[in-house]
Amino acid sequence: MRASVHRFTMRDPSDVSQLAAAIDSGQINAAHIVAFIGKTEGNGLVNDFTRGYLVQSLSLLLAHRLGTHAEKIAQSVVFVFSGGTEGVLSPHYTVFCVDPSPVSTAPVGKRLAIGRALTRVPRPEEIGTCAQAALVADAVTRAMAEARITNPSDVHFVQVKGGCVTAEGARDARARGVTLASADPNRSMTLSRVAGAFGVMQALGERDAAQINESLFLARPDIWSGRASVSSGIEVTMNEVVVFGNAEGWDSDFIIAHHTMADALDINGVYACLDELGIDCRGDSRAPALGRIACALVKCEPDASGMVRGHRHTMWQDGDIHAQRHIRGAVGGLVAGVLGDTRIFVSGGAEHQGPPGGGLVALIASAVAQ
Amino acid sequence: MRASVHRFTMRDPSDVSQLAAAIDSGQINAAHIVAFIGKTEGNGLVNDFTRGYLVQSLSLLLAHRLGTHAEKIAQSVVFVFSGGTEGVLSPHYTVFCVDPSPVSTAPVGKRLAIGRALTRVPRPEEIGTCAQAALVADAVTRAMAEARITNPSDVHFVQVKGGCVTAEGARDARARGVTLASADPNRSMTLSRVAGAFGVMQALGERDAAQINESLFLARPDIWSGRASVSSGIEVTMNEVVVFGNAEGWDSDFIIAHHTMADALDINGVYACLDELGIDCRGDSRAPALGRIACALVKCEPDASGMVRGHRHTMWQDGDIHAQRHIRGAVGGLVAGVLGDTRIFVSGGAEHQGPPGGGLVALIASAVAQ
Amino acid sequence: MRASVHRFTMRDPSDVSQLAAAIDSGQINAAHIVAFIGKTEGNGLVNDFTRGYLVQSLSLLLAHRLGTHAEKIAQSVVFVFSGGTEGVLSPHYTVFCVDPSPVSTAPVGKRLAIGRALTRVPRPEEIGTCAQAALVADAVTRAMAEARITNPSDVHFVQVKGGCVTAEGARDARARGVTLASADPNRSMTLSRVAGAFGVMQALGERDAAQINESLFLARPDIWSGRASVSSGIEVTMNEVVVFGNAEGWDSDFIIAHHTMADALDINGVYACLDELGIDCRGDSRAPALGRIACALVKCEPDASGMVRGHRHTMWQDGDIHAQRHIRGAVGGLVAGVLGDTRIFVSGGAEHQGPPGGGLVALIASAVAQ
Amino acid sequence: MRASVHRFTMRDPSDVSQLAAAIDSGQINAAHIVAFIGKTEGNGLVNDFTRGYLVQSLSLLLAHRLGTHAEKIAQSVVFVFSGGTEGVLSPHYTVFCVDPSPVSTAPVGKRLAIGRALTRVPRPEEIGTCAQAALVADAVTRAMAEARITNPSDVHFVQVKGGCVTAEGARDARARGVTLASADPNRSMTLSRVAGAFGVMQALGERDAAQINESLFLARPDIWSGRASVSSGIEVTMNEVVVFGNAEGWDSDFIIAHHTMADALDINGVYACLDELGIDCRGDSRAPALGRIACALVKCEPDASGMVRGHRHTMWQDGDIHAQRHIRGAVGGLVAGVLGDTRIFVSGGAEHQGPPGGGLVALIASAVAQ
Repeated sequence: MRASVHRFTMRDPSDVSQLAAAIDSGQINAAHIVAFIGKTEGNGLVNDFTRGYLVQSLSLLLAHRLGTHAEKIAQSVVFVFSGGTEGVLSPHYTVFCVDPSPVSTAPVGKRLAIGRALTRVPRPEEIGTCAQAALVADAVTRAMAEARITNPSDVHFVQVKGGCVTAEGARDARARGVTLASADPNRSMTLSRVAGAFGVMQALGERDAAQINESLFLARPDIWSGRASVSSGIEVTMNEVVVFGNAEGWDSDFIIAHHTMADALDINGVYACLDELGIDCRGDSRAPALGRIACALVKCEPDASGMVRGHRHTMWQDGDIHAQRHIRGAVGGLVAGVLGDTRIFVSGGAEHQGPPGGGLVALIASAVAQ
Repeated sequence: MRASVHRFTMRDPSDVSQLAAAIDSGQINAAHIVAFIGKTEGNGLVNDFTRGYLVQSLSLLLAHRLGTHAEKIAQSVVFVFSGGTEGVLSPHYTVFCVDPSPVSTAPVGKRLAIGRALTRVPRPEEIGTCAQAALVADAVTRAMAEARITNPSDVHFVQVKGGCVTAEGARDARARGVTLASADPNRSMTLSRVAGAFGVMQALGERDAAQINESLFLARPDIWSGRASVSSGIEVTMNEVVVFGNAEGWDSDFIIAHHTMADALDINGVYACLDELGIDCRGDSRAPALGRIACALVKCEPDASGMVRGHRHTMWQDGDIHAQRHIRGAVGGLVAGVLGDTRIFVSGGAEHQGPPGGGLVALIASAVAQ
Repeated sequence: MRASVHRFTMRDPSDVSQLAAAIDSGQINAAHIVAFIGKTEGNGLVNDFTRGYLVQSLSLLLAHRLGTHAEKIAQSVVFVFSGGTEGVLSPHYTVFCVDPSPVSTAPVGKRLAIGRALTRVPRPEEIGTCAQAALVADAVTRAMAEARITNPSDVHFVQVKGGCVTAEGARDARARGVTLASADPNRSMTLSRVAGAFGVMQALGERDAAQINESLFLARPDIWSGRASVSSGIEVTMNEVVVFGNAEGWDSDFIIAHHTMADALDINGVYACLDELGIDCRGDSRAPALGRIACALVKCEPDASGMVRGHRHTMWQDGDIHAQRHIRGAVGGLVAGVLGDTRIFVSGGAEHQGPPGGGLVALIASAVAQ
Repeated sequence: MRASVHRFTMRDPSDVSQLAAAIDSGQINAAHIVAFIGKTEGNGLVNDFTRGYLVQSLSLLLAHRLGTHAEKIAQSVVFVFSGGTEGVLSPHYTVFCVDPSPVSTAPVGKRLAIGRALTRVPRPEEIGTCAQAALVADAVTRAMAEARITNPSDVHFVQVKGGCVTAEGARDARARGVTLASADPNRSMTLSRVAGAFGVMQALGERDAAQINESLFLARPDIWSGRASVSSGIEVTMNEVVVFGNAEGWDSDFIIAHHTMADALDINGVYACLDELGIDCRGDSRAPALGRIACALVKCEPDASGMVRGHRHTMWQDGDIHAQRHIRGAVGGLVAGVLGDTRIFVSGGAEHQGPPGGGLVALIASAVAQ
């Protein structure tokens, strides 16, 4: 088993030419692609259509190369796109491939491992509840198995996509006389992320299933997963889970590490993650070792208290720029300055995903300098 | 002579209560205030009225405490406010005071020195030309004299405010048959900043007067001052200059240092500036030595090439968020993460002020830990 | 008694020169000013400081002319400013004056009548409840008495300003163990407007007090006042009420009329209001009779259904421009095109103020052509 | 020959289900489609990708139904999409079909006629010049011939799409040593629209070719076409022209009319256009005759003077919302209120297209009530 990581940029959300070239040159086998994670240049809010546009463009490319229909691509590939390239962030996407055939025979130690799993489609009344958390927990466990990860501490990043209660779902629930966690789509999206985060905590042993109940949801921001990155959207039905970790039996050059960020200024957390990878670049955004980084994943949130280290911020009061755009630009600027690279996946909406007002960073790097 | 530096935050642009309390408690002598530099929570663009609102609020406070009229305050105090607290940036203002009486008698070495000077009101046809640059150069020289700075290398930050060609100015110029650098207010504001930057270069010996001509303006971004921070506005008439440096004959606890930022990711430049101050905090935003910082001043620009270290940014193409807001949020996030503090003056519009796509940082700190 | 209406424009929120000139020329007696209603050029959202800036600027002017302190002005004058001059709308303010001395002796029929009243400061637990509605109803009744209006059908526009639950109010409520309608400031602001609208309905006999209960709040948008215009803000404590109508005993040249707007396209409603005033201008934005209009007041809302006359609108999904900015621009464009004038007060947040998805328009005009 | 007009709405820019259903039900013959004109829900500025997303989605649908490749669709169908559904405007697209076979034999008088033509790809140095105007003029003449329109007064709307100088074009021009009207893409886009408008004026006899020279471009806003609607974009190469008029030999139920709008408040102009169609609805947005309208096309501009009928507007100074978004929302609100329908194509960038600060409106309606 061999996981590979390929990072591409684009002129606009319809530009998939770099991936096309990589497929056509044989660098990437289109049939090995398991997931995309990337940033598109929309606003990252409800009316951001750059995500769908890129999904359509990539699906058309893969369908053409694989001789299938575009609609079928989404059944075998996970697309996770976050809109909003605020500040210095660069529109880009990372392609994750898994080659099932063993490549090397000599043991190389734990290397980047990727596993995926889907839940069944949750019923509307399950969304944003412990039932959804349990579904996600089960999927994470199965994805870990697919990734051949046995020790939860070898999991470093879990990307979860989940749905929300739609108008149709709400009607169906009313017809059956069941109660919803929330019938409001936005609230439901938030609760879906929360349930996903608790599901990850449960699967990774960050928190006992017995200690997970809905009274904690949003009420206890001090309870969080250090490795969950959850997004939700009206276009999603079942939960999709991708687990990233390090495991035996994988023989790529890549390893992954993660660290929490205590707040939006926690440069210490980013350097701690680099330390895990053995990349020494403290204060030097041009350190050659930074060339080993293949993918940077960040989750963050505007501090709910309205303060960062004791001083007022204005993100929540700004009627012109959404709070999530503000925080992505700021944390993106910080991490880009540390890494010397602007191709960073920075996503907001980090409820129970990392410390409140902070978040988490995960980095994939070559195991050895290239 | 004793310069002091006081940093205050505010609830909104009308909230001057922290300064009022400092005056009323005797911490600040209102008559000693020479300048304000700060960030307000508007958009930092043409229709940002938070700057004027804060000037009016501070003027009212000082007029009341000094027993004079609000309109008179602007004649003796320089107000430099930059709108836009994108990302983590906190609305705040720094008050600079000069106590003319000698305080200590023992020599303490070079300490923070502040000098101010005004030019005469430029004629419309001078704005954005070498004539304006010469006026600014002369004012910088006089401000250095007021600050008792004899060696230009002891100057670390020069704040210049300048006007632009107004509709009235353009009419006057037409009536007299003279040619303007530009009759367009926005272009004229840009050229006014450019002329100011060249004026600073001339006064500080960064470039010979003989080598300054208008064909370089905006055409040669590789020619820049490492210490000029210039703003322009339709409400300004003469150029106002404030010089910050280190000099003998001043006996505060403060010193100032500066460094260029080569681009928006140049964390190295920020740490180099801290090195100058003897503050060791590489990779540690909670280092105790950071408590010495009293004021942080940053000038930055979106890279005109559309790229940052080889990868596309979207700042110039974004029709929803202005490019200057993007870059302030990103560079503000980076510098705040280094300093562990969000009270940072970050200003855009940095033509010929620092390297293209980069900028400069200046830090004022206590000479010794407090 | 003589009510007068003066409409002024401004260069920016600090520009009160037109009012100053009117006072200095004797056109306006500063002591007669009872209220200002106007539009400022901010975003009309939480971080809109143009309202406060204009209040400060006007207060300074009046304090100077009346020989008092700026803080005292707000005790005797009502300021109602709505931010947001989207589209063609022009920043302006209308000054309402009442000259207490009788001017004419011959009966002229019902003419513009203005009355004001304040409530006591509501307790936090009263905000957004029937208790607040009762307080507002009482104030409207008293304001009608001050305006000498005995028949509620002679009331054509009731402007109400109300507060919301602040952090301090919420703490106080917790300490006393009482329950709040909502502790969330934004929700509390909405409920405060709702309570105000029901208070107006009660006072005007649009709905019996016995039929007002909190289960209707926001749940029954089909229950609305045709004459209430309510705003709320964190800076307000007691409710302030200004009633506009036509009554005997007033002898100005002005009369007022109002009409509902069934939806955002209801040009019929605007023409019906003009019909009430005897202004014939159907389809002609340059009709001379439109010169009689002295003040235009509009309240509107984005349709909550997401549709306008059967077709989807995008106001609620737009992450770049707030829904209230969208609707003000659209309805402002429509009413301005009908009236041939861009000095129109257009305010959003019209819960229970006019039909859902629509709103109301009130026009003050000279009784006879001038 | 029979032209037909079909207006569809969409959930998002990927939703082409209404057209798919119309094709599948036989209402529309996909092979007859000649042009699309519509509004998508982006910002209408450089980073609006909703236009491209809808083009991709429609091309995929047509390619599938016609058994061809998506890339080929653009060779036979003109796509004109304007981003920005500000205010009440509804995302929608109008499909124009031409059935080449004669349907009726009895003469019906002049009916809706549609013709298209392409220019050759202009050289970079031709863009924004009289040479481009001449190319467009020639294409308009050919499109009129295709539409069988012999009298230019029977032309009511000419949609032109044109390119601009790209980075490649500028390099090519430099290599050949030729001079460009402008190397700046934004300026070049503006000049491309201007040249297109002058080309339309020439072809329609609105202005003699001999009286067209580049010194008039942007300098003489009083020279304008009453029927040109021009857009430009970096993705366009040759100019594409679609002419709409009324002509013999066409036998649909539709006719078209147009009128200028003198300014953004010119409701008179809109009613004048309705008068041409015999639709009597003055002041009544629910008039049954309005049901005859099949398509509404509007071009408008923020007044460059900063004033609308003597009062200041803030569109040009707003750093949060682009001026073109403001004006589309306002004029869209006005026209929607007149027509009682929000499916209106409102496009900005109207240099030399209608009176300055105003624009033009064209309406397609059933010749008889349906």
